[in-house]
Amino acid sequence: MNKRGVLLVISGPSGVGKGTIINKLFDMDDNLYFSVSATTRQPRQGEINGVHYTFKSIEEFEHDIETGEMLEHAQFSGNYYGTPRSAVEKKLSQGKDVVLDIEIQGARNVKRLMPEAVLVYILPPSIDELKKRLNGRHTETEESVSRRLHTAYSELHEAPELYDYFIVNDVVENAATKIEEILDCKRCGKAAMQEIIKQILEEAENLA
Amino acid sequence: MNKRGVLLVISGPSGVGKGTIINKLFDMDDNLYFSVSATTRQPRQGEINGVHYTFKSIEEFEHDIETGEMLEHAQFSGNYYGTPRSAVEKKLSQGKDVVLDIEIQGARNVKRLMPEAVLVYILPPSIDELKKRLNGRHTETEESVSRRLHTAYSELHEAPELYDYFIVNDVVENAATKIEEILDCKRCGKAAMQEIIKQILEEAENLA
Repeated sequence: MNKRGVLLVISGPSGVGKGTIINKLFDMDDNLYFSVSATTRQPRQGEINGVHYTFKSIEEFEHDIETGEMLEHAQFSGNYYGTPRSAVEKKLSQGKDVVLDIEIQGARNVKRLMPEAVLVYILPPSIDELKKRLNGRHTETEESVSRRLHTAYSELHEAPELYDYFIVNDVVENAATKIEEILDCKRCGKAAMQEIIKQILEEAENLA
Repeated sequence: MNKRGVLLVISGPSGVGKGTIINKLFDMDDNLYFSVSATTRQPRQGEINGVHYTFKSIEEFEHDIETGEMLEHAQFSGNYYGTPRSAVEKKLSQGKDVVLDIEIQGARNVKRLMPEAVLVYILPPSIDELKKRLNGRHTETEESVSRRLHTAYSELHEAPELYDYFIVNDVVENAATKIEEILDCKRCGKAAMQEIIKQILEEAENLA
């Protein structure tokens, strides 16, 4: 009897340390699968189709958006990037938990198309700390820090209504452990247990 | 900053071993509070008001039903039994997690009045095993076993739509640990985190 995997969406403002938490999570849990994004940009040297990205033509990608095959997508510098539903579905049905690292608009789309998805939002310990972390990145100009903070503020207003769980990233290990606990407990959630419930109901009917 | 506690409703068919799981859970977790029921029956010798039960007159109890102060209630042998909302609210606001051991109609009422409640349904490893456990009780006649099984079947049909989590009681320790994990993960749920989210939003507004 195969339990269905959990679809886990992780979001949070730039600078909150999401990438580090996700890396830690993959160290801790070998039932996780990181969704391979689809893109319309050209493959770079050494990039393997289906490993780094699934490369698609613009026509294919737009067709996938129309049919709902793209769980979410965004455009950067004229190229599409998105999450193909069929690959996610396949892993979930194999009992793998699938992690998507996407921003709030994408998360909203995923929740609409797959309402059983678990949405986790990573919070900074404080806004002051978030500012410090962004200023500590040497790649950021003062203007880009201020732009990222502005986006963070507006996201923080939208997040409470959409996300299921909120984790403060004070210590990376603690934050990753909390996500692991959320996965553990979702493994007895209604969606994951549906096969087992069905089986007990069938047994009950045969005995009734 | 006080995190709000989690309201945990535990249900399951007679004979599934709910009481044993709940006792084990209280051994494991000292942040739990078992809700004290209200009743209109007369106190028995040694029973303390507010400890074993909160004793109420029929008029008080019926008034509490009308105002929504009874989260759920039932009648047995002409007496009312129910869960007073204000006592539950008080513990939750102190950050305590509150456990209610109630059947499916009660759980439905609690969910309606407090939608953030977490509903856990305990499943037997199999219907055959449930039958064995009920037959093993020396207090049950053949007729009462058959009546309890009949109730279990109809509950099992209603449960999937209502409950959030399903736990198979194969080994008591494992089942209790799973409930503990659900509590842990609900401690980063939206309802528990609302104060922390509010505080970060206020900080963001002051800095914006």
